[in-house]
Amino acid sequence: MINLGFVGYGYWGPNLVRNFYATVGAAVKKVCDCSLQRLETVKATYPSVDITQDYEELVKDPNIDAVVISTPVSTHFSLAKKALEEGKHLLLEKPMTATVKEAEELIGLAQRKQKVLMVDHIFLYTGAVRKIKKVIEDGELGNIYYFDSVRVNLGLFQHDVNVIWDLAPHDLSIMDYLLAKKPEAISAVGISHFGNLENIAYITVQFPDNLLAHIHVNWLAPVKIRRTLIGGSKKMVVYDDNEPSEKVKIYDCGVTCIENKEDVYQMLVQYRTGDMLAPKLDTTEALKLMSKEFIDSINQNRKPFTDGEAGLRVTRLLEAANESLKEKGRVVKV
Amino acid sequence: MINLGFVGYGYWGPNLVRNFYATVGAAVKKVCDCSLQRLETVKATYPSVDITQDYEELVKDPNIDAVVISTPVSTHFSLAKKALEEGKHLLLEKPMTATVKEAEELIGLAQRKQKVLMVDHIFLYTGAVRKIKKVIEDGELGNIYYFDSVRVNLGLFQHDVNVIWDLAPHDLSIMDYLLAKKPEAISAVGISHFGNLENIAYITVQFPDNLLAHIHVNWLAPVKIRRTLIGGSKKMVVYDDNEPSEKVKIYDCGVTCIENKEDVYQMLVQYRTGDMLAPKLDTTEALKLMSKEFIDSINQNRKPFTDGEAGLRVTRLLEAANESLKEKGRVVKV
Amino acid sequence: MINLGFVGYGYWGPNLVRNFYATVGAAVKKVCDCSLQRLETVKATYPSVDITQDYEELVKDPNIDAVVISTPVSTHFSLAKKALEEGKHLLLEKPMTATVKEAEELIGLAQRKQKVLMVDHIFLYTGAVRKIKKVIEDGELGNIYYFDSVRVNLGLFQHDVNVIWDLAPHDLSIMDYLLAKKPEAISAVGISHFGNLENIAYITVQFPDNLLAHIHVNWLAPVKIRRTLIGGSKKMVVYDDNEPSEKVKIYDCGVTCIENKEDVYQMLVQYRTGDMLAPKLDTTEALKLMSKEFIDSINQNRKPFTDGEAGLRVTRLLEAANESLKEKGRVVKV
Amino acid sequence: MINLGFVGYGYWGPNLVRNFYATVGAAVKKVCDCSLQRLETVKATYPSVDITQDYEELVKDPNIDAVVISTPVSTHFSLAKKALEEGKHLLLEKPMTATVKEAEELIGLAQRKQKVLMVDHIFLYTGAVRKIKKVIEDGELGNIYYFDSVRVNLGLFQHDVNVIWDLAPHDLSIMDYLLAKKPEAISAVGISHFGNLENIAYITVQFPDNLLAHIHVNWLAPVKIRRTLIGGSKKMVVYDDNEPSEKVKIYDCGVTCIENKEDVYQMLVQYRTGDMLAPKLDTTEALKLMSKEFIDSINQNRKPFTDGEAGLRVTRLLEAANESLKEKGRVVKV
Repeated sequence: MINLGFVGYGYWGPNLVRNFYATVGAAVKKVCDCSLQRLETVKATYPSVDITQDYEELVKDPNIDAVVISTPVSTHFSLAKKALEEGKHLLLEKPMTATVKEAEELIGLAQRKQKVLMVDHIFLYTGAVRKIKKVIEDGELGNIYYFDSVRVNLGLFQHDVNVIWDLAPHDLSIMDYLLAKKPEAISAVGISHFGNLENIAYITVQFPDNLLAHIHVNWLAPVKIRRTLIGGSKKMVVYDDNEPSEKVKIYDCGVTCIENKEDVYQMLVQYRTGDMLAPKLDTTEALKLMSKEFIDSINQNRKPFTDGEAGLRVTRLLEAANESLKEKGRVVKV
Repeated sequence: MINLGFVGYGYWGPNLVRNFYATVGAAVKKVCDCSLQRLETVKATYPSVDITQDYEELVKDPNIDAVVISTPVSTHFSLAKKALEEGKHLLLEKPMTATVKEAEELIGLAQRKQKVLMVDHIFLYTGAVRKIKKVIEDGELGNIYYFDSVRVNLGLFQHDVNVIWDLAPHDLSIMDYLLAKKPEAISAVGISHFGNLENIAYITVQFPDNLLAHIHVNWLAPVKIRRTLIGGSKKMVVYDDNEPSEKVKIYDCGVTCIENKEDVYQMLVQYRTGDMLAPKLDTTEALKLMSKEFIDSINQNRKPFTDGEAGLRVTRLLEAANESLKEKGRVVKV
Repeated sequence: MINLGFVGYGYWGPNLVRNFYATVGAAVKKVCDCSLQRLETVKATYPSVDITQDYEELVKDPNIDAVVISTPVSTHFSLAKKALEEGKHLLLEKPMTATVKEAEELIGLAQRKQKVLMVDHIFLYTGAVRKIKKVIEDGELGNIYYFDSVRVNLGLFQHDVNVIWDLAPHDLSIMDYLLAKKPEAISAVGISHFGNLENIAYITVQFPDNLLAHIHVNWLAPVKIRRTLIGGSKKMVVYDDNEPSEKVKIYDCGVTCIENKEDVYQMLVQYRTGDMLAPKLDTTEALKLMSKEFIDSINQNRKPFTDGEAGLRVTRLLEAANESLKEKGRVVKV
Repeated sequence: MINLGFVGYGYWGPNLVRNFYATVGAAVKKVCDCSLQRLETVKATYPSVDITQDYEELVKDPNIDAVVISTPVSTHFSLAKKALEEGKHLLLEKPMTATVKEAEELIGLAQRKQKVLMVDHIFLYTGAVRKIKKVIEDGELGNIYYFDSVRVNLGLFQHDVNVIWDLAPHDLSIMDYLLAKKPEAISAVGISHFGNLENIAYITVQFPDNLLAHIHVNWLAPVKIRRTLIGGSKKMVVYDDNEPSEKVKIYDCGVTCIENKEDVYQMLVQYRTGDMLAPKLDTTEALKLMSKEFIDSINQNRKPFTDGEAGLRVTRLLEAANESLKEKGRVVKV
C-alpha cells in the first residue's frame, strides 16, 4: 500500500484525490492546502483523511510514501524539492516547473534519491492519444508533415501564468509524445488585453525533416475548440476532443507528387481520398490510468510513462516560447 | 452598355463570364485565352461571343470598354498595364499583382487615364462579410481584440504561387475590410513538402492597440475548414463559411477586468456569456454583386468598392509575408 | 429540516441521494435497497446515513418525514401507498405508476393525508425546457402546429418495461408541460427484437386544433439523438439536448397562407426566414432544482411543480400507448 | 442515337434536359411545356432544340424515340399512355402515377409495345445509396431490424399533392430498394395547416420478420434534415444526405441477447460498440447515371434498373398511405 499526501486542493486537486482514493494499492492519508475552507471540504468528503495547512508536517510524515503536488507552478520547485529530499516519491501537476533549471535539478535529485518523479501529462493517458500514437507507430500516417493544434475557449483566466503556460502544456506534451522528435526552434506571438499576462498566443515549433508544429491557445474565444490535425504522407488524423464519441478520425487520404519534366503546367500533385475511420477508443478515464501508473511505477521501482524527462522537455519549450513571446516572435533555438 | 473583354478562361474565368453575361448594362464581347480548347468551350456556351488567342487584338479592339483579367498573378501586371494604356477600365482577379511596385504603378496609371481599377476581392461581396462589417460599424463588438482565420483543405495545389498567395488573399482582404486598420508588422512561417512552394503557412499580423491577426492556410488538410473568429470586448463573432445556413454567429459574451487592489489573488477577470444570434444573411451571389459594382462604378465614374488601393494593401501584406517566410518567420515591418 | 428516506439505490437513486444531501433544509436519514452490496456503497460514501433492507423499517421510522422512491415502476404503487399511509410526503421517480388506476389512488390518498405527492419529471427543471416554456407563454411561437421528439441511442435496455415506458415519459412530460393541452387520441407502433419488450416505438398524439405530436424512442440506434422540433405559426424551436451549449435554437421563420382566389396554381404559401437565436440558458443542475422544489413544497404546504396530476397525465398516455401497441397501432381515445 | 422529347420544363425538367444533353448516345430534340415563357428559356439555352406547347405534336413526331415526363403527377398517366401508344420509350418522374391502377396499366402497355418504361427514382443512383445496398448485400448489417427516415425542411410547399406524395417517394423508393422485401401493412397520420393538403406526415410500414420502417416527412421544419437510420443485428448505418462528404457512416455495433435462465433480472442484452467507418463514395452525379441507364436500357433492349415495377411498388405504398391518412392512421394491408 502506497500512502499518499496531497498538496493543493484547488481546481485540479479534488480530481486527483478522488481518483487516488479509488486506486487499488493507494491510500490517501493527508491533504495540505493554505485554505481552511478547502480543507473542510476534504474532511466532509473523506472523513478518514487528515488535513493540514502546514506542508512541513505533511512532507516529514514518515507514514507518507509519496507526495502529489497540484499547486500554482511557481511553487512546484520548492515543494517538490522538499518532498524528494525527505525521500518521497513525487507526482507533479503540469507544467512540471517554472524553469528548465528547476526541472533539471528535480530530475537529478530524484535520481540520487532513487525516487519516482512523474508529471501529470494527463492527455497522454486518454484513449484518443494512445490510439493516435499506435496509428503513428504502426506507420499508418507515413511521414508526418505537420501537427496543428487549437485549444481555445472563454472563461478560465489564470492569474499567475499566461495562456501558454496554462493551456499549451497539453498540446506540447501530446506533440512531444506523438512526434517523438527533437525540435530545433520555437517562436511565439501573443497579446495581453488584461494586465500583463498574454491571453492569446500562437506557437510555432520547427522540427528537422520538414516537420512543422503549430499551437493556438486562447482564453478569449466565444466557442470551445479542442482540435488537432496531424498530416502524414499516407493518412491524416483529426482529433477533436469536443466530440462526444468520435474523437479520432483517420482519413485515408494523401498527396503524391509526380515529377513531370515535360509539362510543368500540368497537374504534378495528385490527391487521393478514401475512407474515413473513427476507431473505437478505450474510454477508461485518463486520471484513473494516470493514478495507477504512478502507483505501479513506485511498486515496480521503474520510470513512469510520463517521467521527469517528459516534463523537462515540455518546460524547455514553454521557457523558449516565453522568451520568443517577449521579443515579439523572434525564433528561439531549443 | 459596357462592352467587356475577358482574359483567362481557366478556373475562375468561366464564373466571371457567366456572371457578367447576366449583368444588366454589361455585354460580354470577347474572350482571350492561350488554350484553343477552352476558347471552343466559350463558343459552344456563348455563340455570340468572339474568341481570340491574341491579347493584342482584344486590348486594341475599340469596341471594348473594359477588360477583366483572371490569369496567373505573374501575368497580371503586363496584361493590366496594356489594358489601361489602351484606355480600358480594368477588373483584376485577386491577388492584384505579384509585387507592391506593380500595384502602385497600375494605380497611378489608372488615375492618369481616369479609368476604373477594381480588384475582385470576392468575399467582401458576401452577405456574411457585409453583415459582420455592419455589426462592427454599429459598435456591437466593442474594441476588437483579435482576428483569427483558418482556411484549409485537401486538394487544390497551385503550381505558380505558394499557399499564402493562393488562399491568404481571401483572409487578408476580409481582415483589411473588417478591421480597417493599418498593420504594423507581419510574420509568416511555412513549409513545402512538394517542390519549392509552401503548402502550409501561418501568418501573424500585428496591429496597434493590442490587436493581433492570425491566418492559417493549408493545402494539405484532411478536412475543409473555413472559420474566422473575431473577438471583441463586448461581443464575439464566429464566421464559418462551411455552414450551409448559419454562417455568422454573434456571441453576446465578453470579459471584464476588475481592478482589485486589495486581493490580487481573487478573480480579477469576469466572464459574461449571453445569447447567441445567427442573423439572417443576404444570400445574393457575391459574384453577381461584384459584377454589378464594376459596371456601376464605370457608369457613375467613381471608385469601386474594392479598388486598386484595397488590392495594393493586400499585395503589400503578401509581399511582406513572403519576405518573412524566406527568413523563417522574421518579423517584417509594413 | 425535512428528514428523508430513500428506497432504491440502483441507477438513479445515487443521483437523488447526492442531490438531496446537498439541499439546504433536507437531511438524508436512511436508504433502503434489496442489495446489501449497494447499501455498502451508501455507507462508504455517506457514513452518517442509515441503511436497511427492510422497507417497513424505513417507512415506519417516525423520524422520517418524506420518502423518495426510485425502484422499478411495477413496485411504485405498493411502496408509495405504504409511505402515504404512514403519513410521509412522497417523491416518485418517473413514470409515476404502472397504471392510471394506481396513480389516481395515490393522488386521492395524498389529498386525504394532506401530504405532498411529487413526480420526478426531471426535464421540466432544465434551463432548456423552462426557456422554451417561457417562449411559448410569451406567444413568440404563435399557434403551435406540431411537437416532434426523437430520443434514441444504443445501450440501455430495460428488463421490466418496454422502450415506451423507459424513455417516452421524458418526452410525454415535456410535451404535457409545453403544450398544456388535453390530447384526444394516441397510437403507437413498435417492435421487439429481443424477448417480449418493444425496443423501438413510434407514438402519435392527436390534439384538438390541428396539433399533432410524435415521439420516436429507440434503444437500438447507433447514435444518440435527443432532438425535439416545435413548429409554430410565428417561430419554431429546435431543442437538441446533445448540444453542449446551444441546446435551444429559436428560428424566426414561418409560413403564411395567402388566399388567392384568382390563380389557384400560383404560390399560395409564403415562407419567411429570419434570424436564429440561441438564448442563454440557466445551467443550474435540474436535479438540484427538483430537490429544492420537493423540500419547498413540503415546507410551504403547497402543490409541487410536478405534482401527482402531472404524473397521472403521463401515465394515462403511457397506458393508452401500450394498449395501442398491442393492437398494432390502433388509435386509442384518451 | 436516341432522340428525346421532354414534357414539363418546370422545377425538375431543366435538370433532366441538361443531363440528357450531355449524355453520350442521347439527343435532346424537342421540349414541350404549357408555358411559353419557359419554352423561351429552353430556346435561349439550347438554340438547336425545338419547342412546342402541343404535346400531340411531340408525341407523334416520328423522329422522337423516347419521351421524358416531368409534369405534375396527376397528368402522368394520360401523357405516358399516349407516348407508349405512339411507340415511344418512356421515362417518368417520380411518383410514377397517381394510382396503382394507372401504374399497372402503363406496365402492361409497355410490355405489349415492348418499350422501356423507367421511373426516375433518383436517389437509387447516388453513391450513398448504392454503397449502403452493397453493404447490405454483403451481409455486413446482419438481419435488418428497422429503417427510419426523416426528410424535413422549410419551404417547398406543393399545390397539387400532399407532403407524402411530394417527399416520401424518395424514402419509399430507397426503402424498397435497400430492404428488398414485400411490406405487409402501412399506416400514416398527418395534418394540414394550410388548405387541404397534409404538410406533416408520419408513415409506418410493417414488414414480416420483425422489420419495421418509419418515415417522417414535413414541409414545415425550421431546419433541413435528411437522415436515415438502418439498424441491423451486426452493424448499423446512418445516412445523412446533408453531410457534405461523410454521408454514410457504418457503425460496427450491435446487440446480442443472452438466454439467462437462472437470473432473469441480470443483464440479458449485451451491447457491442466498435469502429465507425465512413466509406469513400462514388461522387458521380446521380442524374448522370440515371440518364445513362435510360439510354443504355433502350439500346440493350432490357429492363432498366428503376423499372415500372419499382414505380408501381412505390405508388402502391403511397396510395395505401393516403388511404390510412384519411382514416386517421388506420392500418392498411398492402
